[in-house]
Amino acid sequence: MPASPIRKLVPFADAAKARGIKVLHLNIGQPDLPTPQKALDALKHIDRKTLEYTHSQGMLSLREKLAGYYKKYDVALDPDEMIITDGGSEALLLAFLACMDERDEVITVEPGYANYHGFAAMAGITVKTVTSRIEDGFVLPPVEAFEAAITPRTKAILICNPNNPTGYLYTEDELLRLRDIVKKHDLFLLSDEVYREFVYNGQPYRSAMTLEGIENNVILIDSVSKRYSECGIRVGVVASHNKEVMEMALKFGQSRLCPPLLGQIVAEASIEGTEEYSKACFDEYKARRDFFIDGLNKIPGVYSPVPEGAFYTVASLPVDDAEAFCQWCLTDFSYEGYTIMMAPAAGFYGNPELGRRQVRLAYVICKEELAIALKVLEHALAAYNA
Amino acid sequence: MPASPIRKLVPFADAAKARGIKVLHLNIGQPDLPTPQKALDALKHIDRKTLEYTHSQGMLSLREKLAGYYKKYDVALDPDEMIITDGGSEALLLAFLACMDERDEVITVEPGYANYHGFAAMAGITVKTVTSRIEDGFVLPPVEAFEAAITPRTKAILICNPNNPTGYLYTEDELLRLRDIVKKHDLFLLSDEVYREFVYNGQPYRSAMTLEGIENNVILIDSVSKRYSECGIRVGVVASHNKEVMEMALKFGQSRLCPPLLGQIVAEASIEGTEEYSKACFDEYKARRDFFIDGLNKIPGVYSPVPEGAFYTVASLPVDDAEAFCQWCLTDFSYEGYTIMMAPAAGFYGNPELGRRQVRLAYVICKEELAIALKVLEHALAAYNA
Repeated sequence: MPASPIRKLVPFADAAKARGIKVLHLNIGQPDLPTPQKALDALKHIDRKTLEYTHSQGMLSLREKLAGYYKKYDVALDPDEMIITDGGSEALLLAFLACMDERDEVITVEPGYANYHGFAAMAGITVKTVTSRIEDGFVLPPVEAFEAAITPRTKAILICNPNNPTGYLYTEDELLRLRDIVKKHDLFLLSDEVYREFVYNGQPYRSAMTLEGIENNVILIDSVSKRYSECGIRVGVVASHNKEVMEMALKFGQSRLCPPLLGQIVAEASIEGTEEYSKACFDEYKARRDFFIDGLNKIPGVYSPVPEGAFYTVASLPVDDAEAFCQWCLTDFSYEGYTIMMAPAAGFYGNPELGRRQVRLAYVICKEELAIALKVLEHALAAYNA
Repeated sequence: MPASPIRKLVPFADAAKARGIKVLHLNIGQPDLPTPQKALDALKHIDRKTLEYTHSQGMLSLREKLAGYYKKYDVALDPDEMIITDGGSEALLLAFLACMDERDEVITVEPGYANYHGFAAMAGITVKTVTSRIEDGFVLPPVEAFEAAITPRTKAILICNPNNPTGYLYTEDELLRLRDIVKKHDLFLLSDEVYREFVYNGQPYRSAMTLEGIENNVILIDSVSKRYSECGIRVGVVASHNKEVMEMALKFGQSRLCPPLLGQIVAEASIEGTEEYSKACFDEYKARRDFFIDGLNKIPGVYSPVPEGAFYTVASLPVDDAEAFCQWCLTDFSYEGYTIMMAPAAGFYGNPELGRRQVRLAYVICKEELAIALKVLEHALAAYNA
């Protein structure tokens, strides 16, 4: 695994801060919004004397609440069909381990979540990518591209919907196309849906779990991290109607004994009675998206599709090497005491060359800071290209 | 991975409870002792608004406290030489991933911790076992046995000291022998030391980290779970002076983002100012050990070596098939309203046949219950063999 381009920038960001420059972080998906008060209160009311192991599958009471939550998305999951995991990260790792043998292949769309490659390395499997293009607004690559990538070792297709890093939301038609490929080749469809709460097109979210005819092929990857702004509690979910897959996943889950008890308590308290909180978060992210994407596209030479979900976008910049520019912003530039840290998009592509002029930007800072960040970016590009 | 013999017994234990029988659990290492009050208080005083990701390596303040803790065992570890993990489980997984490639081999002693095989399956590596024997009191197998197990693919030796499941504590001489093998073949020595607080021979504990001449070969696996009775918080440590190994481990650690924030806060509060607590726990376990092992050896046909560490023992029973007997205790036997659940030792051996007449017993229930458990066992054996 090569060091990610983001990590390489960290020392430069630290150095900038040491020089007294305020670094606005557009580079990470750590929301600034508060965790629900109800969840924080639950922490204070823990009255256990011994902080014991929970069931390897996770607390039944949490899985029952999640079953209720999924029902709102027309996803009928029994608590027995879920395993609570150490965040979405472990959910994906267990899914890989349960569905695939060493050297099997999974196909995913690039640009894609960089850490997928880390989990694949852990599980000993190979990631193949099909390319979505910024000039097409990151729509699903054509069926032919998937067909061309399929080999006898291909066991699964992995999507992230809405997408990290592009914010792209797959259409009904695209989901049906994926369904057809999966069915034709009898593959697993691993669907990472951790951003489902953040869908800005006014339509109800459609989970891959609702696709007809592939009920036994779909594995849901989920996490409470983003939707309740509680990334640090490490609570995710892997779920499927496929009993064989879930039994295998649980064997690996039993080896690691259990998911975090305290996180499970917080997660359970987050699910019900937080509708107003969720609405407020949604409104905030939507307003930020509208403001930020609009602002990006007004900067000469910058282009961002309008993402319909999550809280990221991949934008192209008028520079030859976005990684060098990101570094320069931290080492050589500031505007009114501020600079910005961005994630070079190269790290999100199987072929880094494709992302050479692109960055991933997360709008998880407040609107006032986003406004400053836009100004910094505009002036930085002008100075860099002068 | 086959289903573990313990898991197969769970439904029988549930059924016994449903019939109103009290099942005393000698089968699991979930301590009944309370978590330190100081740690529980720390939970109530969390005043964060957002439960954020921590550093992938874990909170620096926790790693600093751990550095102080290890110093008491003459282990000089810099906070930068540690990664906080999701329990000892993930510590071992990261160690496997960082030290070994797929199909590489690790040698461990049987009987050994059954979940090692699960992590090995995740990492795609092979576990080879050398046998320690109950008739020898589970001493370290002879050097020749290790030498015979070493192949060109052998990358590491893994020990658990004090041992789960046997409670055996390696002697100074045995540690030096391991050191010599490791040095001769340039292997890694993975040392799982999660039970170091529980050593009953009156001698200071010697960590593999203090072995001279193999400083770059030793990887420490640790966890706060057992020593502070907080198994559910999922906080462990993988540590080494070997920079290359730690860099590789951190790359995998970065993929999963971070260890649990809340657990880290609890763990940090557990380390200092809990000396009295630790002393009380130690005294309690020592008293239980003395009482329980003595009681076991008084039962006709039962034999247990006297374990010098941890809170387990592997005992041989006067039965042909311990697994069948364990099940029978749950399905067909009770004594004054009680029965016992034990872990068939077959699951702790690479070759299950070797553990056919043995069980692992954990003394993590109070002395009064241990006394009842001993009576149940005595009467069960008499009835079973009648």
